Amino acid sequence: MPDKMLELKKRLAEVDDLASASYLLGWDQQTHMPPGGAEARGRQMATLQRLAHEKFTDDAVGHLLDDLRAEYVDSPYASDEAGLLRVVEREYARATRIPSDFVAEVSSHISATFSAWTTARAANDFAALRPGLEKTLELSRGYADYFPGYAEPIDPHIDNADFGMNAVSIGDIFAQLRAQLVPLVQAIAERPLADDSVLRRRYPEAEQIAFGEAVVRQLGYDFSRGRQDKTFHPFATKFSINDVRITTRVNENFLNEALFGTMHEAGHAMYEQGVAAAYEATPLASGTSAGVHESQSRLWENLVGRSRNFWEHFYAPLQSVFPAQLNDVSLDNFYAAINKVQPSLIRVEADEVTYNLHVMLRFDLERALLNGTLAVADLPDAWNARMQADLGLTPPDDRDGVLQDVHWFGGFIGGAFQGYTLGNVMSAQFFAAAQSAHPPIPDQIRVGSFDTLRGWLTENIYRHGKKFSTDELLRQATGGPLSIAPYMAYLREKYGELYGL
Amino acid sequence: MPDKMLELKKRLAEVDDLASASYLLGWDQQTHMPPGGAEARGRQMATLQRLAHEKFTDDAVGHLLDDLRAEYVDSPYASDEAGLLRVVEREYARATRIPSDFVAEVSSHISATFSAWTTARAANDFAALRPGLEKTLELSRGYADYFPGYAEPIDPHIDNADFGMNAVSIGDIFAQLRAQLVPLVQAIAERPLADDSVLRRRYPEAEQIAFGEAVVRQLGYDFSRGRQDKTFHPFATKFSINDVRITTRVNENFLNEALFGTMHEAGHAMYEQGVAAAYEATPLASGTSAGVHESQSRLWENLVGRSRNFWEHFYAPLQSVFPAQLNDVSLDNFYAAINKVQPSLIRVEADEVTYNLHVMLRFDLERALLNGTLAVADLPDAWNARMQADLGLTPPDDRDGVLQDVHWFGGFIGGAFQGYTLGNVMSAQFFAAAQSAHPPIPDQIRVGSFDTLRGWLTENIYRHGKKFSTDELLRQATGGPLSIAPYMAYLREKYGELYGL
Repeated sequence: MPDKMLELKKRLAEVDDLASASYLLGWDQQTHMPPGGAEARGRQMATLQRLAHEKFTDDAVGHLLDDLRAEYVDSPYASDEAGLLRVVEREYARATRIPSDFVAEVSSHISATFSAWTTARAANDFAALRPGLEKTLELSRGYADYFPGYAEPIDPHIDNADFGMNAVSIGDIFAQLRAQLVPLVQAIAERPLADDSVLRRRYPEAEQIAFGEAVVRQLGYDFSRGRQDKTFHPFATKFSINDVRITTRVNENFLNEALFGTMHEAGHAMYEQGVAAAYEATPLASGTSAGVHESQSRLWENLVGRSRNFWEHFYAPLQSVFPAQLNDVSLDNFYAAINKVQPSLIRVEADEVTYNLHVMLRFDLERALLNGTLAVADLPDAWNARMQADLGLTPPDDRDGVLQDVHWFGGFIGGAFQGYTLGNVMSAQFFAAAQSAHPPIPDQIRVGSFDTLRGWLTENIYRHGKKFSTDELLRQATGGPLSIAPYMAYLREKYGELYGL
Repeated sequence: MPDKMLELKKRLAEVDDLASASYLLGWDQQTHMPPGGAEARGRQMATLQRLAHEKFTDDAVGHLLDDLRAEYVDSPYASDEAGLLRVVEREYARATRIPSDFVAEVSSHISATFSAWTTARAANDFAALRPGLEKTLELSRGYADYFPGYAEPIDPHIDNADFGMNAVSIGDIFAQLRAQLVPLVQAIAERPLADDSVLRRRYPEAEQIAFGEAVVRQLGYDFSRGRQDKTFHPFATKFSINDVRITTRVNENFLNEALFGTMHEAGHAMYEQGVAAAYEATPLASGTSAGVHESQSRLWENLVGRSRNFWEHFYAPLQSVFPAQLNDVSLDNFYAAINKVQPSLIRVEADEVTYNLHVMLRFDLERALLNGTLAVADLPDAWNARMQADLGLTPPDDRDGVLQDVHWFGGFIGGAFQGYTLGNVMSAQFFAAAQSAHPPIPDQIRVGSFDTLRGWLTENIYRHGKKFSTDELLRQATGGPLSIAPYMAYLREKYGELYGL
């Protein structure tokens, strides 16, 4: 390898070390840190992120990129070297527009709003968070302004999370989806409601955690390169390809939360664990976009974890862990319960059919906030009105309304939500392609074997890390661009059968 | 406050943020990290430590110190500003002798030897660790060589940990102590052995941890600014004055390990939690020396935690947690059991009387290693021979011999052990001074009240952080320099009574 490539990688590793350390500080903040630690933690994370930004935007990186661009001009597009240069150039161009002090200011502010949210959410106190959120909105607009020429201020945020997309292209997909989802929700609403009361019996925490861990171990999450801890708002996080952690929360009175949450986070984590080892400590060593990342969490959570095939294997083991709770419940009834469709208040607990309406609500609200057509002060009312319009429900309080998600209190306003629905759409597209390549996959799932599926995902998605864009991955792996057709077909087939449509 | 002082503090806070982040990475490595994370973790800690060193040794810090020295020339010695400048100047002079690459090399090497030790110790495999340890010795000599003019290569290491001391001064104290300890050990050996079999009944882990945490909460360890986790080799660590954590390990077949270990680490942690808030994120925000730090852990562990007064309060609660194990054991018998004197293999489990012989052994061996009079290859034999000579025991294997302590595998060879015995000596000196200032302290301990004692320690030791040296603290708090007299008087009185000498 030429010396300049080595020099670039050495600099990238230093940046990655600082960023990974800040992620560990964040993981600790959300899992173990005592309350007293919050103030210093905010300062420490801001320092690490500022230094990572300073190191990455160093002129020397730009000079190396200039030299390497010429040196690797003939490298094939799909080569690791060309991929690395492509991604680093894109991120360098983006990062050099942002002053390091702005990075530190944002980090420090977000650390404070996150900390405030953890108590204010519990206290149902939007008013306490409002000034912080207004500052976040100002910073989020400020971020966009470093990228003049955008059509809407949300666009640079979207581009950051889901490279290649913008408010208009997302809006198009969401409109297509909405046109088909709303009638499906209405059709299901006319059918008798499924009974999920069996999921609301008492399920002790320790057994829930043990069962969830056994499941994701079998899916392929590698605990020798990961671990699970409890937190308030579950997430997955990566400190190295060989240290990718998941978190969960347990509701002893509702089985779904930890069980499907654990599969969801394990889906994210298997993506990161599956990146090619050669990409370690470079910008290639990460999922390519929010949407593709979410496609993996949702694929494992829903297309696998909420399928009948899956439970033909796992229901007996689950019954043996919770005999008193489940021995009187048939597989059919359990399957219907975990797939109950009913408009509800909380996004992360929503069923597959109504889930995307929650996402569209958030996307439209953050778009409006950034465009200046909605004030932070009016956000709770706007939230509640939209919930009523789309889902026929009004949250009884902000805790189960506008305060339920960490995103606006743990990062920018803008770019944080569209990936959830893009991920749902892509999860079905990828799963269909995997099944088409390997028809035995459903039968394998029925006997608890996931190697073929995970192998296909690794080969076509995971190992590439960030080398290919979302669109490139989709075309290579599924033969075409993003399409809602496989997703709607999946929903129609599954819920058509469940609800006799 | 003048701008230059603010500028200095800003730079010091950045250094502290990097250092604190590296401590969190180290804490995670020893408590939660999955095995896969080890390689990246080593690189990340090395990067953080190198950057902290680069930032601290920046010429700008030197220029600020030059300017501030003149500006604060009339500040009283005991003022915070004069103290800060004094400590920063000392550490700057030391740090600027060390290249940043050396710091990173050491960090990276130590991370590897630590990781190797965790498996090789369990496998009783000194041979596997020998090459790494030889490299550590080379690096430890290399460190000393950055401070030419030393009398022995261990001196710069000692000065680092216990400012103001060196091999000769430590050797003097150890010789004095040895002359009085050996006859005491011999006198006790002629008496009937205490029976500690009651401590070796089965004590379930969860109850041990809960009891230990209740005890240290009552001593004054603040869990809102700390927490306890399990680890392999317990330690305390600080990420902020308001986030000081302890770790423990539990032996279900030996009550002492977690119980006294928790009090020990809480002693370290209360010192760090008690530093003046104004010192946050500066070099003043830490215990002043290894010896004074250890005096606090040992004071709470032994002079308080192994005293009869303490157990007059806590024995009934302990019995109520472990009724089956302890209801047939009188307080007298329990007190005799936890203070059983008997030569043993493991330093951290040794009784108060023989403990210092373990420390002297290590101090003499690391001194010999650094002086070149002992080769790493001969270390296990030298260890075993000295154990036989001093304690009449030969370890059955290296696991319980030369591999038992993490220090030589988690840091330099040199400077890591003398503080334990200095701490024992000072613990009695400080405790005697506290009692002399507040005669009711023993009666307060008897009813489970520790506020007066902790208040005296905070006032005289904790709040000062690193502002005063060990010698200055001793003279201010006890009226004189380091003396073994209070320690030997304490041991003679306590063990004279216990063993009828």
